Amino acid sequence: MAFKSKIKTIEWVENKSRMIDQTILPKEFKTVDITTTEEMYRAIKDMIVRGAPAIGIAGAHGVALGAIELSKTEKNKEEFLNKLAQKAEYLKSSRPTAVNLMWAVDKQMQLANQTQGSSKEITKALIENGIKLENEDIEINKKMGDYGAEVVPKGAAILTHCNAGALATVGYGTALGVIRSAYAKDPTIKVFADETRPRQQGARLTTWELTQDGIPTTLITDGMCSYFMSKGMIDMVIVGADRIAANGDTANKIGTYTVAIAAKYHNIPFYIAAPLSTIDLNIKSGKEIPIEERNHEEVTHINGDWICAKNVNIINPGFDVTPNELITGIITEKGILKPDYTKSVKSAFNELMHKS
Amino acid sequence: MAFKSKIKTIEWVENKSRMIDQTILPKEFKTVDITTTEEMYRAIKDMIVRGAPAIGIAGAHGVALGAIELSKTEKNKEEFLNKLAQKAEYLKSSRPTAVNLMWAVDKQMQLANQTQGSSKEITKALIENGIKLENEDIEINKKMGDYGAEVVPKGAAILTHCNAGALATVGYGTALGVIRSAYAKDPTIKVFADETRPRQQGARLTTWELTQDGIPTTLITDGMCSYFMSKGMIDMVIVGADRIAANGDTANKIGTYTVAIAAKYHNIPFYIAAPLSTIDLNIKSGKEIPIEERNHEEVTHINGDWICAKNVNIINPGFDVTPNELITGIITEKGILKPDYTKSVKSAFNELMHKS
Repeated sequence: MAFKSKIKTIEWVENKSRMIDQTILPKEFKTVDITTTEEMYRAIKDMIVRGAPAIGIAGAHGVALGAIELSKTEKNKEEFLNKLAQKAEYLKSSRPTAVNLMWAVDKQMQLANQTQGSSKEITKALIENGIKLENEDIEINKKMGDYGAEVVPKGAAILTHCNAGALATVGYGTALGVIRSAYAKDPTIKVFADETRPRQQGARLTTWELTQDGIPTTLITDGMCSYFMSKGMIDMVIVGADRIAANGDTANKIGTYTVAIAAKYHNIPFYIAAPLSTIDLNIKSGKEIPIEERNHEEVTHINGDWICAKNVNIINPGFDVTPNELITGIITEKGILKPDYTKSVKSAFNELMHKS
Repeated sequence: MAFKSKIKTIEWVENKSRMIDQTILPKEFKTVDITTTEEMYRAIKDMIVRGAPAIGIAGAHGVALGAIELSKTEKNKEEFLNKLAQKAEYLKSSRPTAVNLMWAVDKQMQLANQTQGSSKEITKALIENGIKLENEDIEINKKMGDYGAEVVPKGAAILTHCNAGALATVGYGTALGVIRSAYAKDPTIKVFADETRPRQQGARLTTWELTQDGIPTTLITDGMCSYFMSKGMIDMVIVGADRIAANGDTANKIGTYTVAIAAKYHNIPFYIAAPLSTIDLNIKSGKEIPIEERNHEEVTHINGDWICAKNVNIINPGFDVTPNELITGIITEKGILKPDYTKSVKSAFNELMHKS
């Protein structure tokens, strides 16, 4: 049973890409209309739009916007495709490590090159494909939501970390999508949201989007999770994933691993919610996942203010890896994968390949 | 071997109580001179001075300051003692849950009532006793430092949480006192300091006092500890304590328990450093320790700014309890207590009673 979320993070509206400006949440809610590839480059780079699936759609929209621009002046089809390819490369450079961005932009360029007819017809096909990808993202999230909701106990209090929500996707969410579907079935569930220092996505984004949708949410600081677990106030943990290895080891926002250890100590189920596209079969285990070192100011400053001594050292890993032994299940659009993950991941992909 | 710290948190200087203003650290370093009981009441209430042992000394100084004032006008000894007792009660109301404050103020009033001679002579005794308590606090910290330093491996990286430092005591510290003594023996050790949300004592105070003393310090956010443990970058954990039960269960700043669980998962030693006065023999286990619920703005605001949605729920426990099974040892001024704590705590107190 799907929940009707009020949030549409990114949406194609009247030849524009409309998105929620995530840089000013939760203080202000504003949408911006992106009308050119250059504006889309800035929107991705400045994190007006963020979250792997949402960035993918932004890339697809960005190519369509480039095609609209070019089709007005460029009547020669070859010239049109050449210039569109340049715009596509430029767009991909806005966040060079975002796998979904590369994937979506390349998919659009493949379509552009394969489509018969004029530049106008190609443009039409790119717009339609952008909208199709939008809908597919929501569909995948809702399928994950349906599967995930089955393992949420009646009246459960669910802890989540960072923002794997509507704001990271087109409009439903992965971990928060499961929570939305569970809430649609049982409005007595409630959520604990970790603040998620350093960037505070839990405080800034998760509390905003859940309270917008009327789902009861308690904000806690990152160190508090074990306290509430020991008091019996948390029944399960559901988080998203940035990258999953073939053995189930999962890279997610820094701090996830600490929550997983605390959950294990208290015998509380710990679930990952992520589409199969997040699983990288080329990566055998978490040890092979590279961890991005981020800007030190994320740790030393909050809202532009220093919070510590100036001559302190900083190490700021953006992600950590939760080993498979701490993960109860991985909720995907094809069902919930269980240990042994090397086997369950392989059979999920085999099934996918046989169907497609 | 004791380390020479540059920090004197509270000190009796020329008939005044001089203290570091902790409300403006680390942005600004300033000492303030407190000259009356009323000023001391405000200094404690506004947290210019904080940390259980430091507040105790502030209370002792506050009574001496009251005696100096009264001895100028009040020649009748009985009247002098009555008015001093009123000032003492007023002082105790500045932080009604601070056990050390009650203890130190009562100790001074006992001395005042027992001292022979004029109000001038009583005043002199109270000043001297305040200075004696200052010195005793540093002596106890240094003894703990000596014992603790013995279990710090060569070149160790030590994780600490909150601020159990010079700034919480007269000038050496409990957990950070052990670190100072270890550093005096081996200047290759280094420290990881948890930010310690919500109040950020780790970021604001611990990074300041350790870098002031030249001890290499890395600031991390609270969720990061497990990541660094898994990378072999943390060798041990040392934290302070607010209250220890007779069985070794330890209440300390919220987030401590999460660090203890992470340490256990990685087989990393986890030590408490606290004077025997922190152990409350009347409390059998951690379950009996009341947990203070603090102001919600500590979670929802940083530096006066909202960081989350406005209609979110907040629960803000100030402390958590780490169960004895996660504690490798309790470093005291009488040596390091080891499990079974019910036995080792009892014998430490028996020894203390036979000596005194």
